[in-house]
Amino acid sequence: MVTPPVRSRRAVLSAGSRDLQDRLEAFERYLARAVRVRACGPGRLGQALRYAALSPGKRLRPLLVLTACEAVGGEWRRALPAAAAVECVHAFSLVHDDLPAMDDDDYRRGRLTTHKKFGEALGVLAGDALLAFAFEELTRLREEGVPDARIVDAVRRLGHATGAEQLVGGQALDIAAEGRKVGATGVRNIHVRKTGALMGAAIAIGALAGDADARTADRLNDAGVMMGFAFQIHDDLLNAGSSLETLGKRVGTDVARGKATFPAAVGEKRARAEAARIMRAVEAAIARSCEHPRLLQVLIEATAKRER
Amino acid sequence: MVTPPVRSRRAVLSAGSRDLQDRLEAFERYLARAVRVRACGPGRLGQALRYAALSPGKRLRPLLVLTACEAVGGEWRRALPAAAAVECVHAFSLVHDDLPAMDDDDYRRGRLTTHKKFGEALGVLAGDALLAFAFEELTRLREEGVPDARIVDAVRRLGHATGAEQLVGGQALDIAAEGRKVGATGVRNIHVRKTGALMGAAIAIGALAGDADARTADRLNDAGVMMGFAFQIHDDLLNAGSSLETLGKRVGTDVARGKATFPAAVGEKRARAEAARIMRAVEAAIARSCEHPRLLQVLIEATAKRER
Repeated sequence: MVTPPVRSRRAVLSAGSRDLQDRLEAFERYLARAVRVRACGPGRLGQALRYAALSPGKRLRPLLVLTACEAVGGEWRRALPAAAAVECVHAFSLVHDDLPAMDDDDYRRGRLTTHKKFGEALGVLAGDALLAFAFEELTRLREEGVPDARIVDAVRRLGHATGAEQLVGGQALDIAAEGRKVGATGVRNIHVRKTGALMGAAIAIGALAGDADARTADRLNDAGVMMGFAFQIHDDLLNAGSSLETLGKRVGTDVARGKATFPAAVGEKRARAEAARIMRAVEAAIARSCEHPRLLQVLIEATAKRER
Repeated sequence: MVTPPVRSRRAVLSAGSRDLQDRLEAFERYLARAVRVRACGPGRLGQALRYAALSPGKRLRPLLVLTACEAVGGEWRRALPAAAAVECVHAFSLVHDDLPAMDDDDYRRGRLTTHKKFGEALGVLAGDALLAFAFEELTRLREEGVPDARIVDAVRRLGHATGAEQLVGGQALDIAAEGRKVGATGVRNIHVRKTGALMGAAIAIGALAGDADARTADRLNDAGVMMGFAFQIHDDLLNAGSSLETLGKRVGTDVARGKATFPAAVGEKRARAEAARIMRAVEAAIARSCEHPRLLQVLIEATAKRER
């Protein structure tokens, strides 16, 4: 018997990032095709929808879906419709958050925001259409052989993570908090909903696409929610110190607008320590819940490291 | 054997309207509880959402869901989550259509529109939350014993009927048509999407909740789409001639805004004849597809007659 070569941690990470790149490229192809074929919409609505959905992005959430599917032993390609669904919910939330009545942003990911390019009515409608499409797309897990029981569970989770008590509720809290002094608990409450809920759903739904049971999905959901909070802390640390070129949107805007951020509430040092503590707990939870957590861990580690 | 009494058409309609009233009251109780318990949302978002979802309305779409369930032999109470889901999609579309960037309406159903009462940001967010909640709620058909395969089918239909190619697409076409001359085909194209698609989905999803197969759901969907077009023709005839008190919103607004309507495109007389022709075809299709179509027929007949 030949002893397998001992792979260094660096080699694991490097192989992992090639695997992530493969999944990213497959996802981009899948999403572009899904949106063009199944969510075209008449005239400029279709253009606005594609502009919003296919804009350059890190695609963190769909990669969480795909790697979570693998982490529980599933074939990642089966999870592509779920990855597209989660990314469309994310794109919807960005388009609506940028509207004049909300955050009133002109730039996003280095380009004009959807409503700046297509007008406010099409900004609202493109967001609406993306949200509806997400649920339609999620049911295409059936064509991938995912059992209906898992799909129904996934729909319920995505609906709940998006709705009044989670993502949309977080945005409402965020707007209500503007210009007011918000303590650490208040900020956490916003970020857990606004960022955490969809990341939790992404991991849980990916696991369901890999035929995980509801208990495993629950545990991964909780880990994903906390991870989202930690990522948001990183984003806020970046926003305070980065430039338009690096971040692709106007920087220092959160401070200028009086946005509630965790670093502002507890100080930069405590915020960094809290994010690191959370990430250790998340990694431990994932290692406990999954038989093949490697690529999911590589993704999370790479994401946590960006720009620091 | 006792010969059953021959019931006059009037007696059938009267018994039918009592049955419809029972279902309407059960629906109102169900919806109020569902929204309060499962879609509360923080602070004023929850208030805005409840204001939009629980505003006085004809509840035509949820009654279509419940009576379609019965029409295929199902127990109507099982379809209550589907009825709530469809009504939440309808409420979402009204809230967003009324926004300043869209139709810019101050009144709806005799009350201030959601964004006029709660501000534009909460108007956008309450609509978003209602749409997400609709899909979460639809999965509660599982607790009513509806098979997962039917629920997945229902989710796909609701997503498609709401998305870029149907309801939201119809609104985009409607806005694009404002102030332009639109022919009969163009108007039909708008109404079939904007009004027809969700009515078709309502009947199809109600039938699925009653465990109908996909073919029956398809046929009922098509009938519902055409019915929605006919109802929209009625609405447009009403809008041209009614008063604020009767209609609960400003009247003559469609004309003032240059909205595309079928009566304007083909003349009032031809519009009336076309609506009547469609309704006869719809009634025939329903009679062919369902074993117990009575109450669904009573509902459709009562709705077609209103205000004429």
